[in-house]
Amino acid sequence: MAAVKACNILITGANRGLGLETVKQFLEDSSQKRHIFATCRDPDGPKSEALRELAKKHPSVITIIRLDADDPSSVKESAKKVGSLLGNNGLNLLVNNAAIVANGTIQTSSVEDMKNTFNTNVIGPLLVIKEYLPYLQAAAKASRIPGMSSNKAAVINISTLGGSMTRMPSMSPNSQCCLTALAGFNMLTVLAAEELKADEILCMALHPGWVKTELGGAKAPLEPKESVEGMLHVIGSLNEKQHGGFLDYTGETMPW
Amino acid sequence: MAAVKACNILITGANRGLGLETVKQFLEDSSQKRHIFATCRDPDGPKSEALRELAKKHPSVITIIRLDADDPSSVKESAKKVGSLLGNNGLNLLVNNAAIVANGTIQTSSVEDMKNTFNTNVIGPLLVIKEYLPYLQAAAKASRIPGMSSNKAAVINISTLGGSMTRMPSMSPNSQCCLTALAGFNMLTVLAAEELKADEILCMALHPGWVKTELGGAKAPLEPKESVEGMLHVIGSLNEKQHGGFLDYTGETMPW
Repeated sequence: MAAVKACNILITGANRGLGLETVKQFLEDSSQKRHIFATCRDPDGPKSEALRELAKKHPSVITIIRLDADDPSSVKESAKKVGSLLGNNGLNLLVNNAAIVANGTIQTSSVEDMKNTFNTNVIGPLLVIKEYLPYLQAAAKASRIPGMSSNKAAVINISTLGGSMTRMPSMSPNSQCCLTALAGFNMLTVLAAEELKADEILCMALHPGWVKTELGGAKAPLEPKESVEGMLHVIGSLNEKQHGGFLDYTGETMPW
Repeated sequence: MAAVKACNILITGANRGLGLETVKQFLEDSSQKRHIFATCRDPDGPKSEALRELAKKHPSVITIIRLDADDPSSVKESAKKVGSLLGNNGLNLLVNNAAIVANGTIQTSSVEDMKNTFNTNVIGPLLVIKEYLPYLQAAAKASRIPGMSSNKAAVINISTLGGSMTRMPSMSPNSQCCLTALAGFNMLTVLAAEELKADEILCMALHPGWVKTELGGAKAPLEPKESVEGMLHVIGSLNEKQHGGFLDYTGETMPW
């Protein structure tokens, strides 16, 4: 694995799928000393059992934090808690991984589903970036590495090629309206990159591939392990050239 | 002006700016017999006075209809009303022009503003397309013109280059977060084009240029007259080649 050297890492939606696999792979790599803030909507619920097990085994590495991207006050509270644990070191790597999906064409999608996907998948990550920005800034300032890197301070938005307007028609003949939120999420990456540039905080979007997870379904060709290995390799090798960009888990540039 | 020959036309946000100018230019062109459904949020309010004046002068051409894109029941009601007036002829041209803007960076934008812009600028037009689809389908079926054209059945989404991820950073250094909704609106065009293809209903996005309107501000280089003249020329000349595309008011292809 290409070394992600970031010390303090926060991952949203860390209780399952790609988020959980990312936590696992960070744990396997014992070459780095790091702390992982693994956030999820419902830390005590049945869907977070695997994450709780991991945290029990590695109490000095993992802290589980409640963060519901759909609830602004929960994002704020989580940042307060993480901030108090970080001390002066700052947050090096923020992985916006939490997302929901909803199916539906123009004729069948519900207003509620559309609103929910936009709230969780666009406003949510925006609020996460906003509330954690002081800690990312602290990490960037504390670092003596010139330029940008994920080891210094970075925001990685886990997006998907489904949000690409250039490739969409060939990929999704059933027109899923929640892709409008995904396009908004990609735009957020572009906007955040512009806004975070002055602080030398790297920001980019990453397409994990089509992966066998609860969201990706059983027909997906990729195992979570392979996808996350690829993404961590890419994350570890990022510099300012990829700032504001969109890559897949193999490092290939994706179209917006 | 290149002839837009559509008989039955609906324009949202028709009480001011580009919407009102579009109504005016359709009225000036007496070579075509047509009916215009000019919709706005508050037909009786002070911001709709100019539209009311026009409708008074041309009662056989203009019908003002209440349509608040932010309110699903209002969209439904408007479609019922328009449907009863259309009879069997169907709707040839639907211009999704209504939009709101809100300023704000990641650090300053409010959750309410983000939600409102997505509701009005993405969910709104989606609902408009959904509720008016039967009338667009009727117009496409009734037409004997092969292929696609705005004279047969078309949805024109008035977008802006601000929603383009490829061009954004150079255009908006202040990172306006409501652009996330604009990116979603552009994605809606791509999705709708895919969904409406089978019915031979043309769908595309149009960038009006930077225009002196309440939204564009006084510094904009373009007069509404010039922008709308250009857009009507483009709309009049569309065929299936531009289906699912993004052009500006001069006919130049825009990047997503």
